[in-house]
Amino acid sequence: MEFSSKLLENAVQEMAQLPGIGKRTALRLVLHLLKQPEEQTTHLAKALIDLKTEVKFCKKCHNISDFQICEICSNPNREKKMVCVVEDVRDVMAIENTSQYRGLYHVLGGKISPMDGIGPNQLNITTLIDKVKEGEVNEIIFALSSTMEGDTTNFYIYKQLENLTIKTSTIARGIGVGDELEYADEVTLGRSIVNRVPFENSLKN
Amino acid sequence: MEFSSKLLENAVQEMAQLPGIGKRTALRLVLHLLKQPEEQTTHLAKALIDLKTEVKFCKKCHNISDFQICEICSNPNREKKMVCVVEDVRDVMAIENTSQYRGLYHVLGGKISPMDGIGPNQLNITTLIDKVKEGEVNEIIFALSSTMEGDTTNFYIYKQLENLTIKTSTIARGIGVGDELEYADEVTLGRSIVNRVPFENSLKN
Repeated sequence: MEFSSKLLENAVQEMAQLPGIGKRTALRLVLHLLKQPEEQTTHLAKALIDLKTEVKFCKKCHNISDFQICEICSNPNREKKMVCVVEDVRDVMAIENTSQYRGLYHVLGGKISPMDGIGPNQLNITTLIDKVKEGEVNEIIFALSSTMEGDTTNFYIYKQLENLTIKTSTIARGIGVGDELEYADEVTLGRSIVNRVPFENSLKN
Repeated sequence: MEFSSKLLENAVQEMAQLPGIGKRTALRLVLHLLKQPEEQTTHLAKALIDLKTEVKFCKKCHNISDFQICEICSNPNREKKMVCVVEDVRDVMAIENTSQYRGLYHVLGGKISPMDGIGPNQLNITTLIDKVKEGEVNEIIFALSSTMEGDTTNFYIYKQLENLTIKTSTIARGIGVGDELEYADEVTLGRSIVNRVPFENSLKN
């Protein structure tokens, strides 16, 4: 692409570094901002810089927060002995949306993924093990994606916990609510049969 | 969406104001920036603000430029008497990419679109008419999108030029190079037959 302005080229190049934004999309977004009042651009720029410089990560669960301890960890009504292990803040938001979970979280900050150069040391795993060692936790619920990286991470943490007395569980894999049986893959369908639950449980919510 | 941090919520909301970026995508982009080195965020913010505050629009053709007169208008090798009317800078870039045009441009800054509240007065039409009145132009080539708004804009400008001696043309509508005839719509195919060109012309490029 040949740009008529260095300023424009620079803005497009920076925008195109965001994941899933190609050069054409970046140009469209930048030209849109050019047409809008100046406030929109300054507000966007300020919001991004404020977030990057001032955001805190909860000292207990590593969730994104405006405080040293996040609102979930400091809420006296949550079950402190139950910890749900998730990949990032989006998963916390998704689980909170269900209103089905009253325990705490532990945000790993990613999954073990050798292809992307992410090993266990880049993730918040040590602090989780420490919590268990200090007897703060009774049950750990793994809620990672059902991918190779997710399973690897689950298994790595599980192995680290082997000699500690702790109950571990993982979220149920099965047929999604509202899904047709015939379109489910055989692994999911198989697991949903092996891990069948008492019928009364399905009436609860 | 329930956010665990006001800073995060703010950044996501600003990002989601860009066209085609929903809240989920905005969250993904913002979380990506959070994982990257701080420079990436500051560079992006700075590039956007620099563009918005320092960008110039060429005094002759209204194209985005770093100078008062853009590089195309100030290039002595361009044909000064030929002006191609386009909607925005993306069209200039697209036509420049073909290397088939050696004249100047006139960037309207949009199309007449009553639905979006854009009338002729919001576009750079008066300066185009003035150029013609001052005898600076021999030929005007309309290169707007073949939509209702594009056609309306073409026709409006054409009417304004009616009493002036000026040659006007519009880019050819026809079957795209590499396209299968059977998939073309009938209007396009019809126009391509009515506006057929001497066979020798098709051998030139």
